[in-house]
Amino acid sequence: MNTKPKIAQIEMAHGAGGKASRRLIEGVIVPPLANRTLQTLSDAATLTIEGARIATTADGFVVKPLQFNGGSIGSLAVHGTVNDLAVSGARPVALLATLILEAGLSGEVLEAEMEAMGAAARACGVEIVGGDTKVVEHGMADGMYVSTFGIGAIDERLTLGPQSVRPGDRVLLSGPIGDHGITILLARGELELESDIASDTRAVTPFVQAMTSVAASGIRWMRDPTRGGVATSLNELARDAQTGIVLDEESIPVRDAVRGACEILGLDPLHIANEGQFLAILAPEIAEAALQAVRAVPGGEGAALIGEITTEPVATVITRTRYGGTRVVDMLVGDPLPRIC
Amino acid sequence: MNTKPKIAQIEMAHGAGGKASRRLIEGVIVPPLANRTLQTLSDAATLTIEGARIATTADGFVVKPLQFNGGSIGSLAVHGTVNDLAVSGARPVALLATLILEAGLSGEVLEAEMEAMGAAARACGVEIVGGDTKVVEHGMADGMYVSTFGIGAIDERLTLGPQSVRPGDRVLLSGPIGDHGITILLARGELELESDIASDTRAVTPFVQAMTSVAASGIRWMRDPTRGGVATSLNELARDAQTGIVLDEESIPVRDAVRGACEILGLDPLHIANEGQFLAILAPEIAEAALQAVRAVPGGEGAALIGEITTEPVATVITRTRYGGTRVVDMLVGDPLPRIC
Repeated sequence: MNTKPKIAQIEMAHGAGGKASRRLIEGVIVPPLANRTLQTLSDAATLTIEGARIATTADGFVVKPLQFNGGSIGSLAVHGTVNDLAVSGARPVALLATLILEAGLSGEVLEAEMEAMGAAARACGVEIVGGDTKVVEHGMADGMYVSTFGIGAIDERLTLGPQSVRPGDRVLLSGPIGDHGITILLARGELELESDIASDTRAVTPFVQAMTSVAASGIRWMRDPTRGGVATSLNELARDAQTGIVLDEESIPVRDAVRGACEILGLDPLHIANEGQFLAILAPEIAEAALQAVRAVPGGEGAALIGEITTEPVATVITRTRYGGTRVVDMLVGDPLPRIC
Repeated sequence: MNTKPKIAQIEMAHGAGGKASRRLIEGVIVPPLANRTLQTLSDAATLTIEGARIATTADGFVVKPLQFNGGSIGSLAVHGTVNDLAVSGARPVALLATLILEAGLSGEVLEAEMEAMGAAARACGVEIVGGDTKVVEHGMADGMYVSTFGIGAIDERLTLGPQSVRPGDRVLLSGPIGDHGITILLARGELELESDIASDTRAVTPFVQAMTSVAASGIRWMRDPTRGGVATSLNELARDAQTGIVLDEESIPVRDAVRGACEILGLDPLHIANEGQFLAILAPEIAEAALQAVRAVPGGEGAALIGEITTEPVATVITRTRYGGTRVVDMLVGDPLPRIC
């Protein structure tokens, strides 16, 4: 190659889901593969095949440690993919999984993770219909990595995307944020903090279905705020929709343990990864009904309307603080929590 | 867990595609995920979604080195998945890919591999419509690993499977065997051998389409003999179809360089991985027409009919040697060539 490479080398920040990830994906990974479907960079790609409209998605999982309070790589791999389909407006139908295993991985750990995948899939009502297994030498992986692929049937009642978002629309968040990221951080034992906090890893499908059944035509956009957190998902939306987003800080649900850990570590809960929450942008006239539908599903009691779409400032997310001031909420920069999923 | 784990730990042989791989997959990986589609353990799973019949497949790629004579991990990841769809009787439509990148991987290598994936996909007429990128610390992967997921439209003219195979059917092989495996072995530089041999990595779609267009109703079964080679693919067929398979050793195409390397290393070319070949079981009345159709496609000149399906000995593959004797050809045991794909 005569041209200078666009990046010198891969850094951990390229995997964090924030600005560096976006530069890597938009600058290096997507252009050589260019096609119209890929250009949208959404969590799931829509295809028409043999007359059927289907959604597909792919996710890699490299979480460290493999097992943590509330879940493990096996359940996370199922939930992450099911959730990508759900927030794309698709009913999850089938998953496939590839495993990259390190020689020396204990059989007990592998069996536990396969049980976790199977149990999570059954709970979500999807089948794992295929996959592949590769083994690398000891020291060439960290126990096991999982890639999950999902296929779903598109719910034709929904028309989702940044282009559907309008000023005045409301922002729904399904529950407390940051539980997953802080749980992983504590599970690594690198901090002196202790807490009984658990990952929120779960399928969001029941909540999305409940909301869709009462208000399909008013749902504009959905996303599961994983790597990079709520702040990154909403900044991407504000940029893509060319709107502003104003959040009411008081209304954003954060558990005390998460808030405390974030204060000690100098992190913003809005940047912390979630694995069982979703954001929805809702037409104002259906926002309250949608909220009540989510709250009526067990596990959805913590849902809240946390803000609204504005015309200004374009491509920017701000919060109104409890003291009446405002601050700009940026995308995640750097990588405070590598290998969170 | 109170029960003893089925395996103590993962060994390299579990990734070789032979007997140990089958024990791992059938003993540990599949049972907790059990469902009817997964039980068939075929290269691609068939789903009916929104009324359309589609084929899906997933493959992990951990080849070492990343780049080798004739190809690289990027082209291999596309071809491997396209070929799994093709031999399952499906027209490849779309791919998704997850990348697991090691911190420190050079930007130049990554850009070259993305270009290789894009070029291979365009040459195969498929689009890469989505994916995911994860980064792990330096030392936690070997440069990059790729998982590819493919979706295809099922060719309703074909009824493929071991249950379709009958005694008297012929065995077609698309070209010389072992090129990929021996190329990788030489690329590692661990041997004193030198050769200009190149990987056979390519899409088999044009050959399969040519054959289907002249003889769809007589094609019983297809497979791409990757890890474990022709011997492992045919042993699996003989076991699943409950037939014997008799090969004519003289008729099996093997390049001199591959034969020479195998003799020096004590390997059987029938156990060496291929990435651009396929096996087809054909009704005797269409076998010659199918062979001529494959040979008429550029790159198919080396195709040959190499044997036939027999009633006895059940679940066994034997070759008739050039000296009139016979020998049993077993599945691959152990792992002479780890991380071949």
